[in-house]
Amino acid sequence: MVDREIIEKGLREYLDSDVKFMLEIGGYILDGGGKRVRPQLVLTFAKSVGGYIPENAYPLAYAMEYLHTASLLHDDVVDGSLTRRGRPTANRVFGNDACILTGDYMYALSLYLFSIYGDIDMIKNVSDSVKKMAEGQLLELKRIGDLNTTLEDYFKIIKGKTAVLFGSCCYVGASTVTDDKQIKENSYKFGLNIGLAFQIVDDILDYVGSSDKVGKTTLNDLREGKLTYPLLVILDKVTPEERELINRVIKDKNPSEEDLLKVKDIVVKYGGIDISVKKARELVETAKSSIRELPDTPEKLELLKIADYIVDRQF
Amino acid sequence: MVDREIIEKGLREYLDSDVKFMLEIGGYILDGGGKRVRPQLVLTFAKSVGGYIPENAYPLAYAMEYLHTASLLHDDVVDGSLTRRGRPTANRVFGNDACILTGDYMYALSLYLFSIYGDIDMIKNVSDSVKKMAEGQLLELKRIGDLNTTLEDYFKIIKGKTAVLFGSCCYVGASTVTDDKQIKENSYKFGLNIGLAFQIVDDILDYVGSSDKVGKTTLNDLREGKLTYPLLVILDKVTPEERELINRVIKDKNPSEEDLLKVKDIVVKYGGIDISVKKARELVETAKSSIRELPDTPEKLELLKIADYIVDRQF
Repeated sequence: MVDREIIEKGLREYLDSDVKFMLEIGGYILDGGGKRVRPQLVLTFAKSVGGYIPENAYPLAYAMEYLHTASLLHDDVVDGSLTRRGRPTANRVFGNDACILTGDYMYALSLYLFSIYGDIDMIKNVSDSVKKMAEGQLLELKRIGDLNTTLEDYFKIIKGKTAVLFGSCCYVGASTVTDDKQIKENSYKFGLNIGLAFQIVDDILDYVGSSDKVGKTTLNDLREGKLTYPLLVILDKVTPEERELINRVIKDKNPSEEDLLKVKDIVVKYGGIDISVKKARELVETAKSSIRELPDTPEKLELLKIADYIVDRQF
Repeated sequence: MVDREIIEKGLREYLDSDVKFMLEIGGYILDGGGKRVRPQLVLTFAKSVGGYIPENAYPLAYAMEYLHTASLLHDDVVDGSLTRRGRPTANRVFGNDACILTGDYMYALSLYLFSIYGDIDMIKNVSDSVKKMAEGQLLELKRIGDLNTTLEDYFKIIKGKTAVLFGSCCYVGASTVTDDKQIKENSYKFGLNIGLAFQIVDDILDYVGSSDKVGKTTLNDLREGKLTYPLLVILDKVTPEERELINRVIKDKNPSEEDLLKVKDIVVKYGGIDISVKKARELVETAKSSIRELPDTPEKLELLKIADYIVDRQF
């Protein structure tokens, strides 16, 4: 856990601006915590491929966390969220306008760090991910309350929400130590697939997680009209009456708890949870197979453990 | 003006997304028009330095316009603006949330184009400018209604609002054809200084431009509590009573037309307009001198004309 302390210190050191208010907002959201999964992925990949160069890997690990932080800042404005990790969201404390600009700043800071410590190929990969993040979130907005949401839409959405940034973290970590295209692409695939699995598990927990464990109330996606994997995979099995109920609930801006629980029961009854768990496990296996060729190091074992943990964390 | 047509076409071609809604919003704001000053600067610099490579210069010219467009999208959300160039702002048509995400997308698209058609040094320059843009706008927000705003603050604000992106356009244009550090830096300085002059002239016109010519109502900055150059440079000359009036007006969320005009008269009386015009002219001369070493081409003449036009456009 020495890494973790270095990361916390570094995240604050590299967040540099001569506009004090910018540092205040950035500091507030960094202080909100988080597991720093993204920097850890960068560093673990840099180490597991071999030839680890800390002077390059650390600033890029911070850069990836800044991208994530920027997207959180904008997310909270987009969603009008009131709390994040038990604290008022930054937009509630500092205003939407300041949070939009601080997000923009952090995106730019991240790319700036890549221009110093990275290379053009990493920037191509990372900027493509940022494009997909925005696309995924916009598509999610657009599909709210839409019973015609497809699985293709869903995967585009969760790629953008979670998976591409995980993929880029692994890609960047590997890229700090190798130019081997195949290794870099396999690293990306590892991140992408654990990211997809991670989001599917999140979506499962929103249906069946206890709110104590997950740290938030459940059935939030449904309440907001978002169709996620457990629901999407059973839609072709339900009766016309059940379909009608589901359609009403996802279109309702303020659905009753009773109706929400009815939809949950339908999802469980038709096996939506089991199918989702199976899919998440498959994605984790795909992820693990994509790093099979890496040398057997303690870091590779750690990556395999991270992959397994994603599905096993709650089941 | 063939360039202009190519630019309009290219801007739409390179705005590529498989999320249709993204293209709709991007297209809406591009259709709003604008003089495409930024792409023109990229192309003119690429041509004036010599060794012009259209295949690289055009996509990067679009990339610079996308950065500008992204900042407009976020600006309108930040300012809560209702109209831009005589049409409802994109945020009014598509919602704040969709505009924030489309702005994020365009920032990322721009950097992505740089990763393909540009080089790492351009990305360093451009991402630094995007940082400064966000910083400038945040500082502007923070200084609203603040009589202690300094000239240093003001220049940081207008650098971010306008000048750094102009600078980067020239830097990028030159960089497509040369690796000469001095030429690239001088190109940047040209853009930076005409950008500063441009913004000062804008701020002058907000005091004394006729609303017909400028295409918007005047005294807007003052109405919003923003202290700009014409006012800042006379603050040390005013009487305590005048200072008190100014302070009241910039802190008032809804100042009367009468009070606004009183402040305007104070600004004119103490020479705020003349001092500002003089400063703008100085900056234009500095800009012109920074491209003195470029070969005497028609494009160089065009650049010198652009520089002069900035101050002369209204006086």
